[in-house]
Amino acid sequence: MKEETDYLKYLFDPASIAVIGVSQNPSKIGSIIYHRLINNKNLGILKAEVYPVNPKISSLNGVKVYPTISKIQDDVDLAVIAVPAESVPEVVREAGGKNVKVAIIISGGFAESGRKDLDEKLRKAIQETSIRVVGPNTIGILDPYSGVDTFFLPRFKPLSNRGMAESLPEVQPGNVAVISQSGALSEIIMDCLKVSGIGIRSIVCVGNQVDLTVEDFLRYFSRDPLTKVIALYLEGVSDGRRFLNALIEASTEKPVVVLKAGKTEVAGRAAYTHTASMVGSIEVYRGAFKQARVIEVEDMEEMIDIVKAFSIMKPAKGNRLFILTNAGGLAVISSDLALRYGLTIPNIPEEVYRNLDELRMKKIIDPIVVLQNPLDLTAQGTSETFEKVFRVVAASGFFDLYLLMPSHQPPTVDDTVIDKLFKVCKEHDCVAVVCEHGESEWSKYIRERFDQLGIPAYPDVRRALRALSALATHRRPANRLFEKTLNVNKIAWLDDLEDGPLDLENAVKLLNHYDLSTPKTLKISSEDELEYVSRELSFPLVMKIYSRKITHKTDIGGVVVGLKTYDELRESYNRLRKKISEMGIEWEGVIIQEMVKGVELLLGSSHDPVFGPTITFGIGGVLTEVLRDFSVRIAPVTLDDALEMINELRTKKVLEGFRDLPPVNLTELAWTISKFSRITWENPSIKQLEINPLIASGNRFEAVDVRGLITRI
Amino acid sequence: MKEETDYLKYLFDPASIAVIGVSQNPSKIGSIIYHRLINNKNLGILKAEVYPVNPKISSLNGVKVYPTISKIQDDVDLAVIAVPAESVPEVVREAGGKNVKVAIIISGGFAESGRKDLDEKLRKAIQETSIRVVGPNTIGILDPYSGVDTFFLPRFKPLSNRGMAESLPEVQPGNVAVISQSGALSEIIMDCLKVSGIGIRSIVCVGNQVDLTVEDFLRYFSRDPLTKVIALYLEGVSDGRRFLNALIEASTEKPVVVLKAGKTEVAGRAAYTHTASMVGSIEVYRGAFKQARVIEVEDMEEMIDIVKAFSIMKPAKGNRLFILTNAGGLAVISSDLALRYGLTIPNIPEEVYRNLDELRMKKIIDPIVVLQNPLDLTAQGTSETFEKVFRVVAASGFFDLYLLMPSHQPPTVDDTVIDKLFKVCKEHDCVAVVCEHGESEWSKYIRERFDQLGIPAYPDVRRALRALSALATHRRPANRLFEKTLNVNKIAWLDDLEDGPLDLENAVKLLNHYDLSTPKTLKISSEDELEYVSRELSFPLVMKIYSRKITHKTDIGGVVVGLKTYDELRESYNRLRKKISEMGIEWEGVIIQEMVKGVELLLGSSHDPVFGPTITFGIGGVLTEVLRDFSVRIAPVTLDDALEMINELRTKKVLEGFRDLPPVNLTELAWTISKFSRITWENPSIKQLEINPLIASGNRFEAVDVRGLITRI
Repeated sequence: MKEETDYLKYLFDPASIAVIGVSQNPSKIGSIIYHRLINNKNLGILKAEVYPVNPKISSLNGVKVYPTISKIQDDVDLAVIAVPAESVPEVVREAGGKNVKVAIIISGGFAESGRKDLDEKLRKAIQETSIRVVGPNTIGILDPYSGVDTFFLPRFKPLSNRGMAESLPEVQPGNVAVISQSGALSEIIMDCLKVSGIGIRSIVCVGNQVDLTVEDFLRYFSRDPLTKVIALYLEGVSDGRRFLNALIEASTEKPVVVLKAGKTEVAGRAAYTHTASMVGSIEVYRGAFKQARVIEVEDMEEMIDIVKAFSIMKPAKGNRLFILTNAGGLAVISSDLALRYGLTIPNIPEEVYRNLDELRMKKIIDPIVVLQNPLDLTAQGTSETFEKVFRVVAASGFFDLYLLMPSHQPPTVDDTVIDKLFKVCKEHDCVAVVCEHGESEWSKYIRERFDQLGIPAYPDVRRALRALSALATHRRPANRLFEKTLNVNKIAWLDDLEDGPLDLENAVKLLNHYDLSTPKTLKISSEDELEYVSRELSFPLVMKIYSRKITHKTDIGGVVVGLKTYDELRESYNRLRKKISEMGIEWEGVIIQEMVKGVELLLGSSHDPVFGPTITFGIGGVLTEVLRDFSVRIAPVTLDDALEMINELRTKKVLEGFRDLPPVNLTELAWTISKFSRITWENPSIKQLEINPLIASGNRFEAVDVRGLITRI
Repeated sequence: MKEETDYLKYLFDPASIAVIGVSQNPSKIGSIIYHRLINNKNLGILKAEVYPVNPKISSLNGVKVYPTISKIQDDVDLAVIAVPAESVPEVVREAGGKNVKVAIIISGGFAESGRKDLDEKLRKAIQETSIRVVGPNTIGILDPYSGVDTFFLPRFKPLSNRGMAESLPEVQPGNVAVISQSGALSEIIMDCLKVSGIGIRSIVCVGNQVDLTVEDFLRYFSRDPLTKVIALYLEGVSDGRRFLNALIEASTEKPVVVLKAGKTEVAGRAAYTHTASMVGSIEVYRGAFKQARVIEVEDMEEMIDIVKAFSIMKPAKGNRLFILTNAGGLAVISSDLALRYGLTIPNIPEEVYRNLDELRMKKIIDPIVVLQNPLDLTAQGTSETFEKVFRVVAASGFFDLYLLMPSHQPPTVDDTVIDKLFKVCKEHDCVAVVCEHGESEWSKYIRERFDQLGIPAYPDVRRALRALSALATHRRPANRLFEKTLNVNKIAWLDDLEDGPLDLENAVKLLNHYDLSTPKTLKISSEDELEYVSRELSFPLVMKIYSRKITHKTDIGGVVVGLKTYDELRESYNRLRKKISEMGIEWEGVIIQEMVKGVELLLGSSHDPVFGPTITFGIGGVLTEVLRDFSVRIAPVTLDDALEMINELRTKKVLEGFRDLPPVNLTELAWTISKFSRITWENPSIKQLEINPLIASGNRFEAVDVRGLITRI
């Protein structure tokens, strides 16, 4: 494996570039790219030498065209290949022979068009040399620092009756790195960042990823000092754990904002357990994003807004928000939304109140103003009021974030408010965001100016609060490696079992091996054994039909709870036996357990085709499918992961002392989840495993029912 | 009551206006308003005569100033009053004497500043005359048709080093009526509509609403032929039913889009029932909005986006969406979001597929294109492809809505795509929306052009889909009147009961009176009666402690289910009796019921201070507080309301045949809800009433437990 991201400096900042596939026809892709590079060279942006290559022509605009790359005397760092797919493998081999470091293969017509043969040939050519490849089937990269730009779409296009109009804006150098699995999306991101005044470090479109992948670029930008934030447009990856490890590596260094397309994909897996039927691909990705502390966004606007926040502002230490405005309506709307985005709006501390009250005494704050958070200075609030109030509040250091909304419409607010608020921000090192609605010259000026000063400004409260929420929640991920399933602690006796459902005894043995408790349980298949049962177990008892044919025992009345006496036990036994016989199912017996009282939870594991073993935790029992209240992570899960999984439940309240039950010990519950998560990770033959219900009460956790499926394929 | 909205024509289009409170000082509010009106008159926008009034000056810029309004010889339709609060009542009385039709009282300093005395005086002055009043404490109205404009905020303000810059843009006449409870918000709405190219019918800021209210303006605009859509910024109303009736009246005629601030308000009511403790003010407003079929939005951006859609596009007949683009990534992102917004993305019907396939054969569609919905034409798609494909799909009439995303970056798409798509839209009368990201000249041109043609264009997929979703879900409300609580069908014997909790017998009697079924129940307080019970009721039975002291019987083990024999019954009785005695609570007996099996639901009613009796339906039993899964409406609820309430439950799945239970008959359930809703509405002394659980199974609904509170105050 060629894994060194050092190669990538030759991609983003080469000393020399060969463009293979130039042509006399200026509208051919090779020509467009060549001319753009030459143009950047003439403008002084591109320092690299550029060599045109085409065996069929000898010169282009008076410049010598090389018949092949090998005929170029000097070293070539980067080859941009825009020739028909069939010729690509040979060109790559030749470039490799010439010791070219990296190639961008623009050409399409490989796996994406069903040409697996060409794909194979290309991979072989790459393996034979030490060249690294971006693509094929990509628009390549754009780097405003080095001037390397293979985006071959028109910057200007004609508009009827209007002459040429800008179609794709020129980007400025900046600190946002963009990795995209779609060319079209990367252009849109580029356009939207431009209008937000945000500069770009580099944009890379990964294409078919036959060699260099999303992961390589994540690693590269995470180490790149010019990159402050990484924006990732993702459609899907092939190796989930490799991806997750790269995400963690990147996210440890800087914020990663990801837009994952394809959320509605329906999981098509065999559903032996609830877990396997409930958990779709997007839930698994989402769990991975959480483990990597990556910020997931829903649409392009949200991506740009949040990338902008991280590009010019720093993350906050907590989520305590102070809202300052002169428009009462905005105060109310923004507090509604702030809570939805997980921010808190604490009351003003007493000391701050006193200082503000002094300002009110001095008539700097209007007497009618109510001193609270959100603070509405009313239309009487001047630029000076804004500054003084903000300073008093900021000086206290009590709040983690500030939402500033100095609405400019009243005559009292002039544009000095911008510098005044900025000054306070600097003095007290505040994490602040501005919201300024509307598109009047004033509004636009205010937003632009704040953006330039490094306080991100948004034209809508929801967008401002979403950005604040991202700044508030960003944290580094745990420094860890998600290894492929390992067999280190594998349980040897599992090897002796055949593929298929795990039987009860082995399932219990497996759980106990991992220090997971199961209620005292006996399995019997004849009435004679009932006496023994009543001696061995303590009443009250639960009796369940044991049958590998029946999935939901409760549904057919196959579970009898609260058996208090031997007579009740026998009566139940005979009733269930009769039921099974009436259903025409083979009698395999019953399971009898000591009854456990508590909250019914679910702990499941299933094998995701991309990420391998995943862990699901949620509400169990008969409500499992109705509530579908669960959280998912990639196995193994740490204690912290598990605590987060618990916190994600909508109906978490059941754990806090539901009715007459004691509150569940959440740390112990997290340990239980964490222990469970090792089972499928350490024993890859177990493809599905589910405890449902896991009955939780105080410090006690009992796996009352367990199902497992062994598949070795 | 002066309820005629005909008065309002004198407000929005008066023949003459008096401005009371002009001054030599041009920065006084009265002067600003006067000069703006004169300016509009000079521009030919305002036709009305304008008279300045101030007893202290005799002329202003050479124009005669009247000492009082009564001294104006001609009729005055509209008086704009900007004098100190103390003088306002007298000015109003004088204007009334002069037969002025409407006054706008700009002046503040009334109830909002704690001056209830002045508020009272003002109300009295209004009542003594036939004048109608907007305000006080308002910026008034702005009507671009008549040129009446009392917004006294600067249109231009100086920017340091930049000269004068536009602070509040001039609006264009259009079809959007804006009613706002906040001056600041109305200016922001005005600014945002302007930038979206949307014209305004009128903006009115209602101020303190001492006379004319939000309801009057809702009625006025609903009948106004120039208004196509009404935007309402709401903080709160005092009379919920009057408001709801006005909303319904307006919403019957045209779409109403409401932004309600104050969602996080905590309900502070006495919580005798779950219902009263769970249902906050915003849930009640939200229920009212649903009954009125008003479109509720979350922020300003969403309001503007949706108002724009209704302003230039028509509502759709259903929610079947077709997505057409040349950017694959957008196709995926938009289908993810479309489902979230309640739209469906059906497959292309076979006939349409055949027609599209023909286009593919003819190479109009590129051979690599997959014919599906969303349809991605890829970068090969030309303007012509877009037109032909759209025509084939639109001609089928199969889809209700279209999301068009012709990304302009590829060289293949030119700007003829705009007129081409518009042509198809016209031909087939399509409900379509365009999404075009970015801010290049091209992007902006595309959006502007589509907007001008009447196809709303948005810069983000989420925003486009939210607008489509509003177009898809807009329907007229049921034509009905929410009367104040009436005593028409009042149950006479309730009058004999004292204030306080309703006792069991009466509660059951009440439910039965409204044809709501209760399980066969007996209440006993001595062991002797158990024999009688076992003869009268059929086993299995449930026994519950009867005590007015205990709220949650289950929590203290006060409910025993599944009693199968007389012995079990007696044993339970003695156990509960012992428990109560140990708790030191007075023994009031037990309730014994026939056991009912089914899904546990909740039906509640509580008295909202604004809307009166409201109905809550949701998941009941022990999960009530944990799930908090409920919907709320204003009583009485119709069958349709009730069906909607059922559909709103997140965990509706429990009704569809949960485990071994038969599916609940939803129509019968809706009838049950509807019948229940009449109780508190017809019997206003019952302030809280709750059935929990209402056990539902198939066609059977049993009110297993009921609590009620009588409060007459």
